[in-house]
Amino acid sequence: MIIKTEFTDGHGKGEVADHHDIEPQFPGLIKSGSFMLRRPSLSSDQPINNLVTPLLTDMYQVTMAYAYYMTGRHEEHAVFDLFFRRNPFGGEFTVFCGLDQVLRHATNFRFSESDVGYLRTLLKPPNDKEKLARHESFFEDYIKNLDCSGVRILSVAEGTVVFPKEPLLRVEGPLGVCQLLETTFLTLVNYPSLVATNAARHVLAAGPGINGKKPQLLEFGLRRAQGPDGGYSASKYCLIGGFHATSNCMAGKLLGVPVRGTHAHSFVQTFTSLDDVRNCTLDGVNLVEKTLNYRKMLGGIYASTNDGELAAFISYASSFPDSFLCLIDTYETLQSGVRNFVMVSLVLSDLGYTPAGVRLDSGDLAYLSLECDIVFKEIAARFDLPFFRNLGIVASNDINEEVLHALSKQPHALTSFGIGTNLVTCQAQPALGCVYKLVEINGKPRIKLSQDIIKVTIPGKKNIYRLYGAKNEPILDLLVGDKDEIPVAGKKILCRHPFISQKRALVLPSKVESLLNVVFDREKGLVVKEATIDEARVRVSSQMKSMRTDILRHLHPSPYKVSVTDGLFKYLHSLWLEESPIMELS
Amino acid sequence: MIIKTEFTDGHGKGEVADHHDIEPQFPGLIKSGSFMLRRPSLSSDQPINNLVTPLLTDMYQVTMAYAYYMTGRHEEHAVFDLFFRRNPFGGEFTVFCGLDQVLRHATNFRFSESDVGYLRTLLKPPNDKEKLARHESFFEDYIKNLDCSGVRILSVAEGTVVFPKEPLLRVEGPLGVCQLLETTFLTLVNYPSLVATNAARHVLAAGPGINGKKPQLLEFGLRRAQGPDGGYSASKYCLIGGFHATSNCMAGKLLGVPVRGTHAHSFVQTFTSLDDVRNCTLDGVNLVEKTLNYRKMLGGIYASTNDGELAAFISYASSFPDSFLCLIDTYETLQSGVRNFVMVSLVLSDLGYTPAGVRLDSGDLAYLSLECDIVFKEIAARFDLPFFRNLGIVASNDINEEVLHALSKQPHALTSFGIGTNLVTCQAQPALGCVYKLVEINGKPRIKLSQDIIKVTIPGKKNIYRLYGAKNEPILDLLVGDKDEIPVAGKKILCRHPFISQKRALVLPSKVESLLNVVFDREKGLVVKEATIDEARVRVSSQMKSMRTDILRHLHPSPYKVSVTDGLFKYLHSLWLEESPIMELS
Repeated sequence: MIIKTEFTDGHGKGEVADHHDIEPQFPGLIKSGSFMLRRPSLSSDQPINNLVTPLLTDMYQVTMAYAYYMTGRHEEHAVFDLFFRRNPFGGEFTVFCGLDQVLRHATNFRFSESDVGYLRTLLKPPNDKEKLARHESFFEDYIKNLDCSGVRILSVAEGTVVFPKEPLLRVEGPLGVCQLLETTFLTLVNYPSLVATNAARHVLAAGPGINGKKPQLLEFGLRRAQGPDGGYSASKYCLIGGFHATSNCMAGKLLGVPVRGTHAHSFVQTFTSLDDVRNCTLDGVNLVEKTLNYRKMLGGIYASTNDGELAAFISYASSFPDSFLCLIDTYETLQSGVRNFVMVSLVLSDLGYTPAGVRLDSGDLAYLSLECDIVFKEIAARFDLPFFRNLGIVASNDINEEVLHALSKQPHALTSFGIGTNLVTCQAQPALGCVYKLVEINGKPRIKLSQDIIKVTIPGKKNIYRLYGAKNEPILDLLVGDKDEIPVAGKKILCRHPFISQKRALVLPSKVESLLNVVFDREKGLVVKEATIDEARVRVSSQMKSMRTDILRHLHPSPYKVSVTDGLFKYLHSLWLEESPIMELS
Repeated sequence: MIIKTEFTDGHGKGEVADHHDIEPQFPGLIKSGSFMLRRPSLSSDQPINNLVTPLLTDMYQVTMAYAYYMTGRHEEHAVFDLFFRRNPFGGEFTVFCGLDQVLRHATNFRFSESDVGYLRTLLKPPNDKEKLARHESFFEDYIKNLDCSGVRILSVAEGTVVFPKEPLLRVEGPLGVCQLLETTFLTLVNYPSLVATNAARHVLAAGPGINGKKPQLLEFGLRRAQGPDGGYSASKYCLIGGFHATSNCMAGKLLGVPVRGTHAHSFVQTFTSLDDVRNCTLDGVNLVEKTLNYRKMLGGIYASTNDGELAAFISYASSFPDSFLCLIDTYETLQSGVRNFVMVSLVLSDLGYTPAGVRLDSGDLAYLSLECDIVFKEIAARFDLPFFRNLGIVASNDINEEVLHALSKQPHALTSFGIGTNLVTCQAQPALGCVYKLVEINGKPRIKLSQDIIKVTIPGKKNIYRLYGAKNEPILDLLVGDKDEIPVAGKKILCRHPFISQKRALVLPSKVESLLNVVFDREKGLVVKEATIDEARVRVSSQMKSMRTDILRHLHPSPYKVSVTDGLFKYLHSLWLEESPIMELS
C-alpha cells in the first residue's frame, strides 16, 4: 500500500511507503543521478562527501601500516570483523546501514600525491641507513600505489536487522590496507546504523495512528546535526529506517526522496497588519476581502485574532493554495492561530482548493490538537465541508520516542510528527560503538581478550545464518566458522551461547538464510550494486515485521539469541585459555 | 609558553599551545593551503565540505522565499539574530565557533543550474495564469541570480565566550535571501560551538595536571562522529576549544594541526610469537636478542609475559624508536603489557633512544597508572635511567568530563587523555539549539512571543557590549539597541534584566568591548579574513582565563548576566504588550 503524504505538510512531490508495508517505493520521484550536480558529485561511484578519502583515518592506522611495511608484514593475509557489542537505546535490535558509502570508499581508495606528501611530514625518516631506503619505499612504492585490489569484503545487506557480536562487515586482504580501512569504515557505518535504528524505533513508537490513518514521520533535523554531512546522513538513513519525508532539500535532490516544509514563525512575524498583504488575488479573487467577510460572519473570537498572522496566512494561501498548511502558534494557538487558519481555509474552499492542515510547535500538543479538531469539526458541520474533518495536524516540538509512546496512551488528534534534534543527535545514545577487530592472520584465528567478557572477540572467519522456525519467524542467528558444517533447513543443529557453556539449544530450522555475502572483490571484478533507498527501506520494514514483538518492544525487550556452532564454541574457548596468562597473586 | 606534546603519544610533528596561555601557536606545522588538494578543496574561500551549498537547507525556507517573491516582499529589509537560549552541559558559558564556514557559505552562495531544476520539481506551478508568469520569474529571474550581495553579517569573533540571548550572528538584508540562509547557518554554527564548548569544559576538568606537567588532551573521536564531516568538525573545533592534538589525519592535513597515534590492539594481535618478528635490527643491533637478554636478567614476572605482545612491541620499536609508545592492555596490563614495554625500552635506551610511554585502554585507569609508575620508578632506580620517571601514561577508555573530575580527586599517574565518543557526540547534551529569529522588518522591530518566557525574543537591531570591572574581569554583557546610547568606560550605565523589572544594576565599566562586528558586507567589498585555528584557540584560552571561576565551575556555576539597556527594556515590554492578545476565559 502506498500512502500519500501530501496532505500532511504541503510541499514536495511524491509518495512514500508505509513502514510496515513490504513493497514501498518512491514512485514518480526524481531518482538520484537524474541531475547533473556541480557539487557534490553524484557521479558514478564516488563517495558523496568529498572528505571521504583514505586520509580520513586515525593516525595510528598509518603508524601501524608503516610498522607492518617496515617489518615486511604488510602483505600478510588478515581478516577483520566490524561489529558492535550492545544494541543502542536500551533496545534489542539494530538496523545496519552505511554499506553504500563503504563500497564507494573501497572502490575509490587511493592516496593522492598531496596525501602522500602530507604523510611524509608525519613519519620521521629513520637514522638507521638500512631503514631509510625502506622508509622511502613505503611512500614511493607502497602508499602511492595502494588500492583495494587485494581486498574482499563480505557484508550483511543494507537495512538488515542485526545483533551484537555479528560481523556486519568482514574485511579480508593484505594486513596493511585492511588496517588503513578501519576508521573510515567505522565512521561510515556507525552513525548511519545508529540513526536508522533510531528512526525505526520512532516508527514503532508512533504506533498505528488514529482513525485508521498511519502517522506520518518527517525528519526535520538538519540544523541540529553534526554539520552538513551529519544532516545529509540523518535524512538518508531516517528514510531507510521508515520515515516518510525530510525537510532537507539537499537530501531530496541527491536521493530523490520526498521533502516537506511550509513556513516558520519568522514568516508570520514579517507581517504586522493586513496592510502588509500584497498581490493577494487568487484566480481573480481578492483574498483579503473574502477573508474579512468570513471574519464578520463568524464574529466573536474570530474578530480579534492577530492581524499580522492573518495577513501571513492569506499571503501564504495565495502562493500555496493547493497545499495550505499553517504554523498556528506564533501568537496564541487557540485564540488566534487556528481561527486565522479556518477563515483563510474557508476562502480557499470557496475557490475549489482543499487546505492541508496546521502545525503545532509549542504547548501541550495532545490538548491543542484535540481543541483544533473540535474547531475543525464545528466548521465542517456548520459549512457542510467534510474535508475539515480530515485536516492534517502536524506536531513538531521536542518530539522523541518517549513523547510518541506517551501520546499513544492519551487522546490526541495529531496525524504527523516532525522530529529533529532527538532523532538526528540520537540523544538517548549518541554513538553506536562499532569496532573493527582482527579475527585471523595468515589463516590463524586470533582472539582479543579482555577482563570484560563483552569485549572478548569471536575468532576466525565466520558467516551468520538466520534460522527460522515453523512460523517463519527468526529463532536465532548462528555464527558458523568457515570449517563448520553449514546449517540446512530441516536438519537439527546444536546452537551454543558463545560464553556460557550451559546455554545450548537444538534448533530445527524451517528455513536458513545466509546474512553475510561477498559485496566487494576487485580481483573477481565484483562490486555489488548499492541498494536503493527503496530497497533498503523495504528490507528494514519487512525484517521488522518478521521479528518477534517481544524483541522490538520498548520496555524490557527480550534479547534475540546470537549463538555459535559447537565447533566455534570449542575453538573459541581453547584459544581463550591458550592466550590468557595465569595470574600470579601474592 | 609552548608545551611539546611529542612525549605523550609519539607521532605527528609539531608543538601545541597550552590552554591557559595567551599566545599559543602551532609553529612549524604545515599550514592549511600549503598542499594542493584534489579533494576536498581548500582552494580560496570555498566551504570545506562539498555538501555546503544553498540547497543544504530546509524546504520551508524555500517555500517562504517563494511566498515572499510571489507577494513581492522578497526585497524587504530584514534583520535576523542567530542565538541560543541555554548554555549546554548544565554549564554557564558557551564557546562560539563556526564563523569561518558561515563566511565561506555566504561568499559562495549561489544556486547551480541543476539546483534550480530540482527546486522546480518541488514547487507546483499555479493554476492562476497571472501567477504563472511570476512563478516562472521566481526561478529564472530570482533564484538563478540570487547571491549574498545585499547581505550584511555582523558576528562575534570565532572562539568568543558567549551567553544565552546574545546575537552571535546578526544577518541583515533582503528578506528572501536572509531566510534562505537560516538552516545552513544554524548547521554551520550549532555543532562547532557545541563541541568547542565541550572541549573547553574537558580542558577545565583535566585540571592543572600532576607533578607540574599540564595534562595533554587528544581528540580521538572520528569513528564515533556523525559521518566524515562530524569527525572533521570535531577535530577542528576541539583544537580551538583547547585540545592539543587529534588522531584525524584529514584534519591534520587540512588544518595543519598536530596529529597523534601509535597502535591498536589489532597490531598486537597480529603477532603470535617471537617468530613473527621480521627485519628487526636497529642501528645494526638485533632487537630480539637484546630484549631476551633483558628478559633473562629481570626474570620472575618478566619471563612469562605474552610473547606475541613482546614481538609486537619489538617490531613497533624498530619502526618508531624515537617515539616508542605502547598500548599495554591487550592481554594483561601489569603481568604482561608494562613488563614487555620495559624490556624493549631498556634496549632502545641502550641504543640512545628515549621511549615515550604507554597507553591504557581498559580497567581501573587510576590504579593501573600508579602501578605502572611504580614499575617505571623501580626500573629508573635499578638501571639509573631518569627518563623512566618521566614517561607518558595515556588513558583512552570511555573518558569524559565526569571521569576527568573524578580522576582529579584521586591519586593517579596519567599524563594524557585520548577522548573520543563522549567528546565528539557531546553525550551530555548532543545539540546546542541555536535558533535564527526575525528581529526587524522594514526598520520595524519584531518580537516572537511564547508562553515560555525563555522563548521570547529581544526585538530590533542590537549590539553586545562586554563591560569590564576594576579587576579587568567581565561584569556583564549589555545588549544595546541601535538607537541606544553606547556604553563607555568610566561612565555609569543602568543595566536591566530583560524580563524581570526588579533586577537592575548600575555599572561603572573600566573597559567596554564591542562584541558584534561587521564581518561580511559585499556592497562594501568586505569579507573579514577568517580566524586561524591559532587565533581562535588563543581567544578561547584568554577569554576563559578572564572569566570569573564561579561562572566556569563544574557544579552549580553562577549565571553570567546578559542585560539590556533601559531603552531596550522599555521597548521590548511595550511591544510584548502590544502583540499579546488578551485571553478570554469563560
